[in-house]
Amino acid sequence: MAMMSGKEYIESLRKLKPRVYAFGERVENVVDYPMFRPHINAAAMTYELAMHPEFEQEMTAISNLTGEKINRFTHVHQSIDDLVNKVKMMRLLGQKTATCFQRCVGLDGLNGVYITTYDMDRKHGTDYHEKFKEYLRYVQDNDLMLAGAMSDPKGDRSLRPHQQDDPDMYVHVVEKKDDGIVVRGAKAHITGTVNAHEIIVMPTRAMGDEDKDYAVCFAVPVDTENITLIFGRQTNDTRRLDGEIDAGNAKYGIVGGETLIVFDDVFVPWDRVFMCGENDFAGQLVETFAGFHRSNYGGCKVGLADVVTGAAFWMAENNGVEKSPYIRDLMAEMVGMAETCWSCSLACSYQGSKTNSGAYTINPLLANVTKLNITRLTYEWMRLAQDITGGQIITLPSEKDLRSPEVGKYIDKYFGGKAGSSTKDRIHMVRLIENMAVGAGLPEALHGAGSPQAQKMMIGRRGDFETKKGIAETIIGVKPDKYFEEITGKTEDEYFAEFRD
Amino acid sequence: MAMMSGKEYIESLRKLKPRVYAFGERVENVVDYPMFRPHINAAAMTYELAMHPEFEQEMTAISNLTGEKINRFTHVHQSIDDLVNKVKMMRLLGQKTATCFQRCVGLDGLNGVYITTYDMDRKHGTDYHEKFKEYLRYVQDNDLMLAGAMSDPKGDRSLRPHQQDDPDMYVHVVEKKDDGIVVRGAKAHITGTVNAHEIIVMPTRAMGDEDKDYAVCFAVPVDTENITLIFGRQTNDTRRLDGEIDAGNAKYGIVGGETLIVFDDVFVPWDRVFMCGENDFAGQLVETFAGFHRSNYGGCKVGLADVVTGAAFWMAENNGVEKSPYIRDLMAEMVGMAETCWSCSLACSYQGSKTNSGAYTINPLLANVTKLNITRLTYEWMRLAQDITGGQIITLPSEKDLRSPEVGKYIDKYFGGKAGSSTKDRIHMVRLIENMAVGAGLPEALHGAGSPQAQKMMIGRRGDFETKKGIAETIIGVKPDKYFEEITGKTEDEYFAEFRD
Amino acid sequence: MAMMSGKEYIESLRKLKPRVYAFGERVENVVDYPMFRPHINAAAMTYELAMHPEFEQEMTAISNLTGEKINRFTHVHQSIDDLVNKVKMMRLLGQKTATCFQRCVGLDGLNGVYITTYDMDRKHGTDYHEKFKEYLRYVQDNDLMLAGAMSDPKGDRSLRPHQQDDPDMYVHVVEKKDDGIVVRGAKAHITGTVNAHEIIVMPTRAMGDEDKDYAVCFAVPVDTENITLIFGRQTNDTRRLDGEIDAGNAKYGIVGGETLIVFDDVFVPWDRVFMCGENDFAGQLVETFAGFHRSNYGGCKVGLADVVTGAAFWMAENNGVEKSPYIRDLMAEMVGMAETCWSCSLACSYQGSKTNSGAYTINPLLANVTKLNITRLTYEWMRLAQDITGGQIITLPSEKDLRSPEVGKYIDKYFGGKAGSSTKDRIHMVRLIENMAVGAGLPEALHGAGSPQAQKMMIGRRGDFETKKGIAETIIGVKPDKYFEEITGKTEDEYFAEFRD
Amino acid sequence: MAMMSGKEYIESLRKLKPRVYAFGERVENVVDYPMFRPHINAAAMTYELAMHPEFEQEMTAISNLTGEKINRFTHVHQSIDDLVNKVKMMRLLGQKTATCFQRCVGLDGLNGVYITTYDMDRKHGTDYHEKFKEYLRYVQDNDLMLAGAMSDPKGDRSLRPHQQDDPDMYVHVVEKKDDGIVVRGAKAHITGTVNAHEIIVMPTRAMGDEDKDYAVCFAVPVDTENITLIFGRQTNDTRRLDGEIDAGNAKYGIVGGETLIVFDDVFVPWDRVFMCGENDFAGQLVETFAGFHRSNYGGCKVGLADVVTGAAFWMAENNGVEKSPYIRDLMAEMVGMAETCWSCSLACSYQGSKTNSGAYTINPLLANVTKLNITRLTYEWMRLAQDITGGQIITLPSEKDLRSPEVGKYIDKYFGGKAGSSTKDRIHMVRLIENMAVGAGLPEALHGAGSPQAQKMMIGRRGDFETKKGIAETIIGVKPDKYFEEITGKTEDEYFAEFRD
Repeated sequence: MAMMSGKEYIESLRKLKPRVYAFGERVENVVDYPMFRPHINAAAMTYELAMHPEFEQEMTAISNLTGEKINRFTHVHQSIDDLVNKVKMMRLLGQKTATCFQRCVGLDGLNGVYITTYDMDRKHGTDYHEKFKEYLRYVQDNDLMLAGAMSDPKGDRSLRPHQQDDPDMYVHVVEKKDDGIVVRGAKAHITGTVNAHEIIVMPTRAMGDEDKDYAVCFAVPVDTENITLIFGRQTNDTRRLDGEIDAGNAKYGIVGGETLIVFDDVFVPWDRVFMCGENDFAGQLVETFAGFHRSNYGGCKVGLADVVTGAAFWMAENNGVEKSPYIRDLMAEMVGMAETCWSCSLACSYQGSKTNSGAYTINPLLANVTKLNITRLTYEWMRLAQDITGGQIITLPSEKDLRSPEVGKYIDKYFGGKAGSSTKDRIHMVRLIENMAVGAGLPEALHGAGSPQAQKMMIGRRGDFETKKGIAETIIGVKPDKYFEEITGKTEDEYFAEFRD
Repeated sequence: MAMMSGKEYIESLRKLKPRVYAFGERVENVVDYPMFRPHINAAAMTYELAMHPEFEQEMTAISNLTGEKINRFTHVHQSIDDLVNKVKMMRLLGQKTATCFQRCVGLDGLNGVYITTYDMDRKHGTDYHEKFKEYLRYVQDNDLMLAGAMSDPKGDRSLRPHQQDDPDMYVHVVEKKDDGIVVRGAKAHITGTVNAHEIIVMPTRAMGDEDKDYAVCFAVPVDTENITLIFGRQTNDTRRLDGEIDAGNAKYGIVGGETLIVFDDVFVPWDRVFMCGENDFAGQLVETFAGFHRSNYGGCKVGLADVVTGAAFWMAENNGVEKSPYIRDLMAEMVGMAETCWSCSLACSYQGSKTNSGAYTINPLLANVTKLNITRLTYEWMRLAQDITGGQIITLPSEKDLRSPEVGKYIDKYFGGKAGSSTKDRIHMVRLIENMAVGAGLPEALHGAGSPQAQKMMIGRRGDFETKKGIAETIIGVKPDKYFEEITGKTEDEYFAEFRD
Repeated sequence: MAMMSGKEYIESLRKLKPRVYAFGERVENVVDYPMFRPHINAAAMTYELAMHPEFEQEMTAISNLTGEKINRFTHVHQSIDDLVNKVKMMRLLGQKTATCFQRCVGLDGLNGVYITTYDMDRKHGTDYHEKFKEYLRYVQDNDLMLAGAMSDPKGDRSLRPHQQDDPDMYVHVVEKKDDGIVVRGAKAHITGTVNAHEIIVMPTRAMGDEDKDYAVCFAVPVDTENITLIFGRQTNDTRRLDGEIDAGNAKYGIVGGETLIVFDDVFVPWDRVFMCGENDFAGQLVETFAGFHRSNYGGCKVGLADVVTGAAFWMAENNGVEKSPYIRDLMAEMVGMAETCWSCSLACSYQGSKTNSGAYTINPLLANVTKLNITRLTYEWMRLAQDITGGQIITLPSEKDLRSPEVGKYIDKYFGGKAGSSTKDRIHMVRLIENMAVGAGLPEALHGAGSPQAQKMMIGRRGDFETKKGIAETIIGVKPDKYFEEITGKTEDEYFAEFRD
Repeated sequence: MAMMSGKEYIESLRKLKPRVYAFGERVENVVDYPMFRPHINAAAMTYELAMHPEFEQEMTAISNLTGEKINRFTHVHQSIDDLVNKVKMMRLLGQKTATCFQRCVGLDGLNGVYITTYDMDRKHGTDYHEKFKEYLRYVQDNDLMLAGAMSDPKGDRSLRPHQQDDPDMYVHVVEKKDDGIVVRGAKAHITGTVNAHEIIVMPTRAMGDEDKDYAVCFAVPVDTENITLIFGRQTNDTRRLDGEIDAGNAKYGIVGGETLIVFDDVFVPWDRVFMCGENDFAGQLVETFAGFHRSNYGGCKVGLADVVTGAAFWMAENNGVEKSPYIRDLMAEMVGMAETCWSCSLACSYQGSKTNSGAYTINPLLANVTKLNITRLTYEWMRLAQDITGGQIITLPSEKDLRSPEVGKYIDKYFGGKAGSSTKDRIHMVRLIENMAVGAGLPEALHGAGSPQAQKMMIGRRGDFETKKGIAETIIGVKPDKYFEEITGKTEDEYFAEFRD
C-alpha cells in the first residue's frame, strides 16, 4: 500500500472506534471533535509533507524490509544519514506546525523495540524480533501512526512496581493464555493517542526479577476492547471554540493532546507481544527508546524556536524597534540558544552507531545532553520572546471584542503597531507567541522524553570519568606521559631535574 | 468613614456603573460576572486583612493628613517602617491570594503624585500638591481602591508622542476649559480597573517640550462618562466556568484582570488635575512611581513563590520523593531565589529616604535591581516547580472526567500519589501549580512595572560609575591613597622604592 | 587602652614571634617579609579607618562590657544597627583595599562564641561565658586582631572525626590537665593568621557523642609554643617582587594570606578554653559563626565589585566605548548583581534578632542566601569585567618590558588607549582587573565561609516548607480559608455551588 | 620533506633567531628559556602525535597540492571529513597538553587566506591565490608552524584605522616598492609566536575605502629584520621556576604564550603578499578566518574540560565523596556543558560546505554559536571544578614547604585525602586544577577568536530572521499555508468558517 496523504490519514481515522473521553463525555467522532482537530491537523502534516518532492529527503526513506519508499515515521534507521534526516524532519515539522506533531514517539518505539528484540532473542532464544519485523512490515505497508506508550502512573515514586500498594500502578501481565496475554494498568501522558492507529506499549524503567510481570512490551490497535483513552487538558484549550485568533495557533493546537490510556484487562495475541518477562532487557529498551526520543528534541523544539523567533522579529518590526541594540541582542541570544540545541541533535545523530540488529542508534551521551539543554534553554528563549513581545501578551482582549461593533474600533486603534500595519495580524501574532511561549509547551519541553533528572543520571553514567581521570593523571605524571618523553627525550623526572639546573 | 471589610468593598462596587466590555459583550453587573469575580475576591483580601488585628502592622497605617488609622493601601509612606511594612503587606497578600491583588498600582500612584506635585509646585508655583492632598483625604476617608494607569498604547515605539501618526497613541489634553480639561487616548494593561473605584492617570515617560499636551496627570471615578474599559483575557480564563479544580485557584484567579481604558474625550474638573503641561516633571513622576512599583515585586511575587514552593513540597511528599537529594536541591534553589528577591525588596525599603514633601521613597537603584531579578528568577523558580510536579502538569484530564461516573474511577486510581492520599487534592494541587507556573503570571513578572530594559537603563543611570572609577584609581595610585600613606608613613612612590631595595 | 592606628597595628606585630614558614623557609620578620606585607597593609586598614571621623559609624562601636569606644572588629553586636553597620564596614573596607582584609573571621568568632557559651552555660552549668567575657575585654582593651580558625583538614570526607584513620584530621584534646588542656591537629585555610595577635579555634561541624574530644573551642596567642603556621600561595604571589604594576594591587595583595595552623600538642590554660567536650553545642557554634560570616560576603565582596566595576568603566572610557550599548548593558548587569548581593547582606542584618545572651545575630536563612549568591554572581561579574577589559588581560608584557630602554617604547605605543591617555595607568588598571577577576579571589568567594553545598543545606533546613505547604493547602481549600469565607460570607463549598448556578 | 617529530620541531627552532623580549630582557635562546619551554612542549605535541599511527586520522591529511601525507596543521580542508577530523584533533591535543597548543591559529590563517585569495583574484584579476599556493606548498613541505596574526592594538575603539591619532594602531603599508612592500604597526595577543617558524598577518576588521592601506595580508619568517616580539605574562608564570608541582602543569604551561609583534618598517617581498589594498575583501578574510577559529574552541577547550573533569573526579574520589549526590550532580553538569560545546563544534563541521576555491569551510552560524557557548560555559565548568576541589585550591602551601625537612611532614599529614593516598599527588592534582580553572585560561576562552560581542553580532547577521518571519506568518495565515489547505481540502477561511458552525 502506498503512503497516505494528510487527507487520507484523517479519513483513515474515521474507521477506528476507540473509546475516548474528554471533558467528562464520550467522544464518538474523533475527527470532527473541535478539541481534537488541531492535534489531528498537526499529525496529518507528518503524512502530507511526505507527498511533496521538496521534502523527500527528510520525510521518506527506503524500507529495509520491503525496499519500498515509506514515510520516515515508519522507518528503522539504516545509516547515519537516516539519523540526520530524521532530526531534519523534526525541525521541518516544528516549523510547519508550530506544535507537537506527535508521531515521533511511535517511531522511536519502533526503533527501540527493533534493536532490543534482536538482542533479547540472541540471549534468550526467543523469537520476538521476527514477530516484530512482521508487525513493522504491517505498519509500513499501511503507513500507520503509532502512539508510543511508556510512562506509567507510578504511584509512590519511592517504591518499585511490585512494592506498590496498588499493583496496577505499572502496566503488568495478569494472565498468560495460549493465544496471548491479558494486561492491566495504565500509561499516562501518552502523546497523540486519540488520533493514532496503534499503540505500542513499553516498560518505563529497568526492572528487577521481582518485577518480571511488569517487563512487558506489545502493540495493539487503538480501538482494542477494554482500552479507554482519557484526554488531558492543555493551556487555553477551549479558546479554540472562540474563533481563530485567540488560540494563537488554531490550526494546529498546542502540545500533543496527551491521554491517559487505561488497560482494563486487555487481551494481546502472542504475535503482538515483544517482551514478556525478560526483565533484564527492560532497562535497555527504555534507554534505547529514550535515547532516540531525547535526540529529537533539538529538532522539533528548534523548529518551534524558529517560529517564535520569527514571530518575535515580526513584533519588533511592527513596534518599530527591530534595530534597537537591546532587541538585537535578545534576537541573537534566541538564535544562539536554538542553534545550540540543534547542534546537539545533529551531533548525536552524526555520532550514531550501528547496533547488533543492523539498525542505527544515536550517541546516547549527546542525546541526553540535547534534551537537558532543551529543558532549560526552551524556557530562556521563550522568556526572551515574551520580552520582545511586550506586556500585551497577557492583556489582550478577546477576539470577540475585536469584532464587536461597539468596542472593536478601540481595539483596532489602540492595539496597533507602526502606522499602516494591521492590528488584527498583530493581535494574531501576539496570540501565536502567547500560545507557544506561555503555556503547556514549556513543561512539555521539560518532562517530555524524561525529566532533567533522568538526563543528568544518564550523562553521569556515560561521562566516562575513569578515562578522563587517566588523562589528568598523565598530565601530572601519575601515569607516564609517553608522548612527552618522546618530545623531550627524557623521562619526566629527568626533564624536571635537568631543567631546573 | 471607617475602613471597609472585604465584603463591604465588594458591595461598594455595586454602586458604580462603569462601561465595561469583556468577550465582546457589555458587562452590567461587574461583581457577579464569573470572569471578574476571582479578581474581585483577590482585591477584597486587601480590605479584609486590614480588619484583623494579627495583620494590623502590615495592613494599616496612621494617616499623616487625618491622624486616623487607614488601610495601608491609601497611605503615603511617612517612615522607613512604612516602606518595610508595605513590602511585608505585599508578601502577605501574595501568600493569601496566590495571585495579583491589584491594589498596589493605585497606592504607588498616590505616593508618586504626592511627592512629585510637591516639587512641581515649588518650581512652577502651581497648587497641585494641596489639591492632591484634598483628593488623598477623600480616598483615605472612603477607603477607595484606585487603578493606577500609566502605560500608553505607544504605537510606533521608535517615535515620541507628538511624532506618532495617530496623536492619540498617548493620552493627551485636547481642550482646556474654565472648569477642567478634556482628555483623549487610552491606557493599556491597567490592573484591577473593572473593580476599582477610581482611576489615577499618569504619563508613561519623560516628555520634551513638544509633548507638553501629553504631560497630564489626573484622577477620575471609574464610571466617568466617556470612559470604556475592555477586559483582557488571561491564561485558561474560561476554566473558571468548569468547576473549582481545573482553574487551579478558582477563588482568586490569575494576574490582575488588566484592561484597556479608553478615554474618548473625558472631562476632568481642575480639582482632579495634578499635572497639565509641566512636561519637565513627567520623568520624575514616572520614575518615582516606577521605583515604588518595582520595589513591590520582591514582596508580592515572593508571596506567590511561597505558595508554589509549598505546593511543590506537597507534591514531592505525595510522590514519596521529598527526601530525594535531587528534589531537596530544587527546593533549596527555589527558596534561595525567592529570598534573594525578598532581600532586595527589604533592602530598597530600609535604604529609603525622605523626600522634600516629607513622604518617604525607596532606594531607586535597589528597587530596579529587585524588579530585574524578578523578571528572571520568577521564571527559574516556576520551572523548578514544574520539574518537581512532573509531567501531569500538562496532561491532567478535566475535572469533569474526575467526576464522570464512567471514567472517574480511572482518574482516581491512576492519578493518585502515595497510598492513602486523595487524588482529588492531588489534582487540585497540580492545577494550582499549573495556574501559577504555566501561564500569564510569568510575563506579568517580566513586564509589570516596566520591562527588563527599563530596569537596566535605570540601573545603568544610578550605578554611580564615576565614584567607583575613583575608588579603582585610588587603588592603583592614579588618585592618592591617603589611608595607605598613613598606614605606611610613606607616599606610594616612597613605599615601593624602599620596599624593593 | 586606646584603639590602634594602622601604623601602630603593624608595629605591634613586631613584638610577636610566631613560628611561620613560607616558600619552604622560616620567616622571622613577619612585617617586612615582602610576600606578607600587602596582606598586613590590608589588615592595617581595619585599624586605620577607625581613626577617622568620617568612618566612625561604620568602624567603631561602644563596648557593652566597658562602655568604651572600640574598633567594631572587636565588638559583640548589640543591636540591628550594629549588624547593619558591620556590613557597611565590610563594603567600605572592600572598596579601600580591593582585597580581603582578614579581620572579620575573628570578629565572627568572637560573636559566635559569645552567643554559644551563654547557652552552653545555661544548659550545662559551665562558666565559659564569663571566662569568655574576660577574654573579650582583653581583646577590646588591646584592640587585637584575631584569626578565626574553624576548618579542619578532614581527611576522608565521608568519615566523621573519630572514624578517621589518623585521629588528628580534626583538632582534638589529647590531654586534660589541672591548669589547662593539650590539643593536637591542624586548622586549614585560616585567613590572616601570620599577622594576627591571637587565634580563636572553633570546631568545624556538628559532633556526635563519639566525637566529644573534638568539641573544643579556645583562644591562644599566635606565637604560642608548638604552633606552626605554614603560609599558602596565591595567584601571582611572587609578582609583588617584580615592581608595583604587575601585581595589579601591590599595596594590598590578594585574598587573605591563608595558612595551615599546626597544633602539635599545644597547651591552653583553662581560662582560654570555651568549650571542651560539650559536643551538643558544636553544631550551634558552627552555625552561629557561619551565619555571621556568610552575611559578610555581600559586604566585602561587593566592595570589591565596586572597585572592579569602576576599573572596568575606566577601561571602557579609555577604549572609547563607554557609550556602546553592549558595554552599557554589561556595566548595568555588573551593578545589578553586586547590588543584589548587597541587598542580601543588608536584609539579613535588618532581619536580625536578639539572642539569649543579649547579643544580636543575623537572619540565618538570608545569610545563607547571601553567600550562595556570592558563590555564583562573583564569577559572573568578574567574567563581565574581563569581557569589558579585552584580550590584553591575559597578554600584557611585564612591567620590566614597559621600563625597558629597548622595547618600552613599543609597549607605550601599542598598549595605549584613547589619544592622550597614559599607557602606564592603562596597564596598571588592566593588572588590577587581572588581580581581582582572574585568580584566587574567585574560589575564595566560592569556598570562604563554607562551600555552596553548605549554604544549600542550610537553606533547605530553614526553608520552612511546612508553613509554605499550609499556605498552598489553604488556597486549594484542603485547609479552611478563613478570610475568603469572611469576604464571601460563604464556605468554599457554598461559594462554588452557588456561583456555578 | 617529511613531517617533523616533536623533537625535530624543537630542534628546528634553534635555527631561527627572532628578536624576542621577555621580562625586560632579550631572549637569545628561545628553546631553553624556562618561561617558553612549556609552551614549546605543547606545540611540539602537534608534531609528535602525527608520528603515531593511533592518531593518523586526526593528525594527518593528504595534501591537495602534493598528494603527500602532511601534518593536518598545514592542510587546507578538502572535505567534511577534514573539518570533523580537525576538531577531533583539537580535542585530542587539548587532552594531551591540558593547555593551548597554539598551532591552530596559523592553520586557520592558511585556510582563510586560501579561500579568500581565490575569490579576490576572480574579482580583481590579481594572482594572490597562485602565489599563496606556492607558499602553502613550502609550509607543507617543511611542516612549518605559523603564528596567525590578526588583532591590532586598535587604540581608540570608537575610531576606524585611518581616523586614529596614531596611524600605526593598525598594521599598514607604508611603502610599495618594486620588489615588495614595507609595513608598520603591531599585532597584539598573538599566540605561539616565539616558537613559530613563520607569521601570517591578516587584517583585523572589514575596511572601507579610506582604510585601503590597512587591507594587507602577508607571511614572513619569524626572524625577519625589524620584527620584535614581546612576550606576555601569564598567571603564575614564574612558578615554573619553583619546581614541577606548583605550576600545576609544568610540562605544558598555560594559554598560548601570547606576544606583541612589532613591525617597525618590515620589508615583505611580493611573493609573500596576499592582499594589498583590496579592502573589499578584508571583511571576508576576517570572517572566514574567524569562522574556522571559533569552530575550534569546542574542540580544544573541551579537551581541557576532559582533563579538568577527570581531575575533579580524582579529587572527589580522594576526598571519599565521589558518590555524594551533590558531587555527582556537579560532575554530570560539567560533562553536559562540555559535550554541548563539543556538539557545536561537530555540528558546524558536519554542516560545512565547499567554497569557490574547492576548500571546505565550516557553517559560520554554528561556529559562532560554538564560541559564544565557550565564552560562558567554560567559566561554569571551571567553577564547578573549583567547587569539587575544595578550599585548598587557594590555600596550598608551596612545593618547597612540602619538601622542607621542617614542615614537610605537616603538609604531608594534613593535606592528604583518603587513607593510603599520596599527598604529593593530591597537591599536584589540586595545582593542576588551579592551573586550569583559576587563571588566564578563562579570559582566553572569552576573548580568543573574538569576544562575545563579535559572536553575537555574527549570529544576529546569520540568524535569517526574514525566513523565520515568513514561517510565523504562514502559521497565522498572513501567508498562505499550502500544506494545511491540502490536509483540510479548504482554505483557512473556509476551514474556520465551517469548523465553527
